[in-house]
Amino acid sequence: MKELEERIRLQGTVKPGNVLKVDAFLNHQCDVELFDHMGAAWAEHFAGKTINKILTIEASGIGIACVAARHFGNAPVVFAKKAQSINLDGDQYTTTVYSFTKQKEFPVIVSKRYLNEGDHVLLLDDFLANGKALKGLINLCHDAGATVEGIGIAVEKGFQGGGDELRAAGYDVDSLAIVESMDPETGTIEFRS
Amino acid sequence: MKELEERIRLQGTVKPGNVLKVDAFLNHQCDVELFDHMGAAWAEHFAGKTINKILTIEASGIGIACVAARHFGNAPVVFAKKAQSINLDGDQYTTTVYSFTKQKEFPVIVSKRYLNEGDHVLLLDDFLANGKALKGLINLCHDAGATVEGIGIAVEKGFQGGGDELRAAGYDVDSLAIVESMDPETGTIEFRS
Repeated sequence: MKELEERIRLQGTVKPGNVLKVDAFLNHQCDVELFDHMGAAWAEHFAGKTINKILTIEASGIGIACVAARHFGNAPVVFAKKAQSINLDGDQYTTTVYSFTKQKEFPVIVSKRYLNEGDHVLLLDDFLANGKALKGLINLCHDAGATVEGIGIAVEKGFQGGGDELRAAGYDVDSLAIVESMDPETGTIEFRS
Repeated sequence: MKELEERIRLQGTVKPGNVLKVDAFLNHQCDVELFDHMGAAWAEHFAGKTINKILTIEASGIGIACVAARHFGNAPVVFAKKAQSINLDGDQYTTTVYSFTKQKEFPVIVSKRYLNEGDHVLLLDDFLANGKALKGLINLCHDAGATVEGIGIAVEKGFQGGGDELRAAGYDVDSLAIVESMDPETGTIEFRS
């Protein structure tokens, strides 16, 4: 998606340790018009699929998923939680994943009420690096007996391999921008064509 | 807002300890069409105000704010973070608030790049109980020299007083449903008229 690549070139910054900061428009300040265009792009890619639910993970995926949902017939968005809270009770699907950005393990939790056998799920998230968070969401879908119809990602860091692993495992992964390489010294960002 | 009150009556559940669970449509599973109607209601209420930025707090506020933003000319949405991360660097506005639902203190952080003097800010959030999270966001706006033009809330627990304190302090608080009382024994929920 040219628009997203251009925004990354314009406003993204490359930091040491494979960090790509896109907080000007994606995951701290949110450009909701861009999110809407991202939703339209995913809807075009997944046009042949029956999707009745969108699953994402807090926090940065939520805004993207909620704006994109109108391109999927206002499908309900469920966001997995990363911590227990008194607002979470009853039966839950849970798994554990390691966060690259927070540098620690955290739980991923979805109430059994909101993920069911027979659900046809689109997974959406802002970033895909090593794919650990997504594999956690896939595990929750498997536990629930739900079908993962596809995975929509804003920015994939292709050189970290998570996206290609998921494709090799048979998932339809639509990343709107795939960073093939980036250089914190020069700030250069190369996209997969 | 009748639609929201009806959803709360239909799908909300009252738990001991002043907990109102609305995770079926507001803060775990998200009804994005309802969010859109909420955005339209806030846009009507705040029609006379100049608003160039929406500020919310992770996680449950993000989806609501991002969907509502299209009713405010696609104003950028900034979500305050509750934890440090390697994605947060540079100068930050920070404050500390106590969470009723998580039962602990946490930081509230916004990068100085995304909240500025001259910003006219609408604060949006899913819940208002004692108002501690909102007061944290207001502190960040004051630190930045930004103007708080108004506060839009989905569900206010009126009996916990935070909303009325903010109104007494001069803020224009538009809560779409104000719960005046609720009973975990009977499940009864009374709204302020």
